[in-house]
Amino acid sequence: MRTVTILGATGSIGTSTLDLLERSPEMFEVVALTANCDVERLAAAAIRTNAKRAVVADERCLTALRDALSGTGVEAAGGAAAVEEAASMEADITVAAIVGCAGLKPVMAAVEQGRTLALANKEALVSAGDVMNRAVRQSGATLLPVDSEHSAIFQCLDARMAERVSRIILTASGGPFRDRSLAAMQDISPAQAVAHPNWSMGAKISVDSATMMNKGLELIEAFHLFPVTSEQIEIVVHRQSVIHSMVEYVDGSVLAQLGTPDMRTPIACALAWPDRMPTPGERLDLIKVGRLDFEAPDEERFPALRLARAALNEGGGSPAILNAANEIAVAAFLGGRISYLEIAAIVSDTLDRFSPAAPDTLEAVLEVDREARVIAEKRVKGRAA
Amino acid sequence: MRTVTILGATGSIGTSTLDLLERSPEMFEVVALTANCDVERLAAAAIRTNAKRAVVADERCLTALRDALSGTGVEAAGGAAAVEEAASMEADITVAAIVGCAGLKPVMAAVEQGRTLALANKEALVSAGDVMNRAVRQSGATLLPVDSEHSAIFQCLDARMAERVSRIILTASGGPFRDRSLAAMQDISPAQAVAHPNWSMGAKISVDSATMMNKGLELIEAFHLFPVTSEQIEIVVHRQSVIHSMVEYVDGSVLAQLGTPDMRTPIACALAWPDRMPTPGERLDLIKVGRLDFEAPDEERFPALRLARAALNEGGGSPAILNAANEIAVAAFLGGRISYLEIAAIVSDTLDRFSPAAPDTLEAVLEVDREARVIAEKRVKGRAA
Repeated sequence: MRTVTILGATGSIGTSTLDLLERSPEMFEVVALTANCDVERLAAAAIRTNAKRAVVADERCLTALRDALSGTGVEAAGGAAAVEEAASMEADITVAAIVGCAGLKPVMAAVEQGRTLALANKEALVSAGDVMNRAVRQSGATLLPVDSEHSAIFQCLDARMAERVSRIILTASGGPFRDRSLAAMQDISPAQAVAHPNWSMGAKISVDSATMMNKGLELIEAFHLFPVTSEQIEIVVHRQSVIHSMVEYVDGSVLAQLGTPDMRTPIACALAWPDRMPTPGERLDLIKVGRLDFEAPDEERFPALRLARAALNEGGGSPAILNAANEIAVAAFLGGRISYLEIAAIVSDTLDRFSPAAPDTLEAVLEVDREARVIAEKRVKGRAA
Repeated sequence: MRTVTILGATGSIGTSTLDLLERSPEMFEVVALTANCDVERLAAAAIRTNAKRAVVADERCLTALRDALSGTGVEAAGGAAAVEEAASMEADITVAAIVGCAGLKPVMAAVEQGRTLALANKEALVSAGDVMNRAVRQSGATLLPVDSEHSAIFQCLDARMAERVSRIILTASGGPFRDRSLAAMQDISPAQAVAHPNWSMGAKISVDSATMMNKGLELIEAFHLFPVTSEQIEIVVHRQSVIHSMVEYVDGSVLAQLGTPDMRTPIACALAWPDRMPTPGERLDLIKVGRLDFEAPDEERFPALRLARAALNEGGGSPAILNAANEIAVAAFLGGRISYLEIAAIVSDTLDRFSPAAPDTLEAVLEVDREARVIAEKRVKGRAA
């Protein structure tokens, strides 16, 4: 029996995690579930899983949560501090699925438990990789990646022979514009860039996938998660997204993890690690898939890749600036304030204009993040004017 | 420093193994090298690697070997018993690369040492899988597969979670005739059958690759090497031979091993296991490869696949009969005595006509092998007449 807390239980990763927990109730016991303000889903999940505590980050939603949980025995709490407190509650596995910088402090609180952290929050590693890795070393926590690429690498990388790894090959779908010329990118609309505009963060990640900034952020994550240099991480465009990523060893062996695109697989890998647990969902049928294609990424058409690698090599606050400026630029693009190609230009401008001292605490990272947003926002206004 | 013996040091696997050992002299010390009668290469390798002993299986070649090794300090020996004795000499790793049933007794002698056996001899597992696995259990030996498919599976299969494996996907290049119609197979010549598109190999194994009997034999090997049922082993045609095989787990993860076709990679995996060692040779460049294709195998055009699975499911002496009849049929085809399509017919006929009791000793396996050859040879004569 493993005890589990989910930070961000009502989003996509949180919902998939709950699905797995509820299919194997004999394996897991839920400690705490948190959400921003989706009281209805949060309360329902907490009651179904018999969670000890349910927490809304937005305090204004606490009353509704209390009402929904009244008489169920599930404790209700609200506010940022309550989320951090939930992250600190002893749990064998804490799934960190809060999106954005809001997830940083809860992630750090979970790390400090010294147990297992299943990490789906990109910003924690992109913006605060060094700070985070130091905290992991200090607390002795185990960090398990939850997104499909890093889970693939984790599964292929034998930790006992880190020094035998020669290369990590991060696969990228190339997004919806992988075959489009630079000239034809000029007038890409938000609607075109967003494949499934179901909810706001879905839109953000969809645009990041279209610009390939998503892969740039994953490059930085991979650097912090695995024992390799930036030069040892190669990005390959693989449009079918069947091979989720690969690890090459000094003997020429390349190990890869493949599967149908279903987030329940990498989540299950983290929940059951070092064992494996069954998941529902379609199995990979390579005969049906038929073929897998590979091509080099084009940094002319996808400058985000170059920017991300430069920020990683620069180190210090650069990755946090990259991430913050990108969030502002993508929001401006989605709001119709700047064109598609200006997203990368804003990120590049912000990186050029802001060179803070290397942030060595979480607070310092959050400060760099805030300042970078202000600068990026100014650049947006300058271009939009 | 690991001590190594190579049984079959002058063949393709033996030569590749020597290449690796000689590149890392600080890691390995050679105990014994054996060959059939290629005195020149054997003596040269023994002298270069400062081997303790060199052995020719064919006693008639012993005088020449003695001459070649005179004054070098390398002991010379000859005859089948001397090969077995060499296999019994204490070595951390014994590489079993003798082709055919001649390798069975030396393999068994190496197993009885209770050390590590790097197995490239197909017949040991195909014909004597049950006997061999029992001997491995009794002696506590470690069996490491050396051919590329089984090495791939071995690398992807975490032995600690055997019960979490749902499927093994054995890839097959499909050989040179994968796109040829059954009608057009009628007049395939030995020269056409020997020209393999991806690997350079001996004549026998090239023909086996053309008929896909090679994959059938590998199916049987996989069954004996890994904790799966026959039904859990799927064969997929993958013409580029870049993915060497795969393992699917209950969570939907499929782990694969990829690489350029270079036998030094699987050999190095066995030599260095559980560590890894550097190898020379080209690294995999998926961008250059461009695409990987997958299709279902066609058991109508490649009846060897059906015959091999049936023999595996039948068990007892059937796999040994399959292997023996195939060797006779392939030799007859290469000798111009039967047509390409008659290879499978001879194997099928022999399996139908011979139902010995399940052989439970090595001697019994060898007896089944001998009888099957006699029967198959009669079928060849009947068809050739």
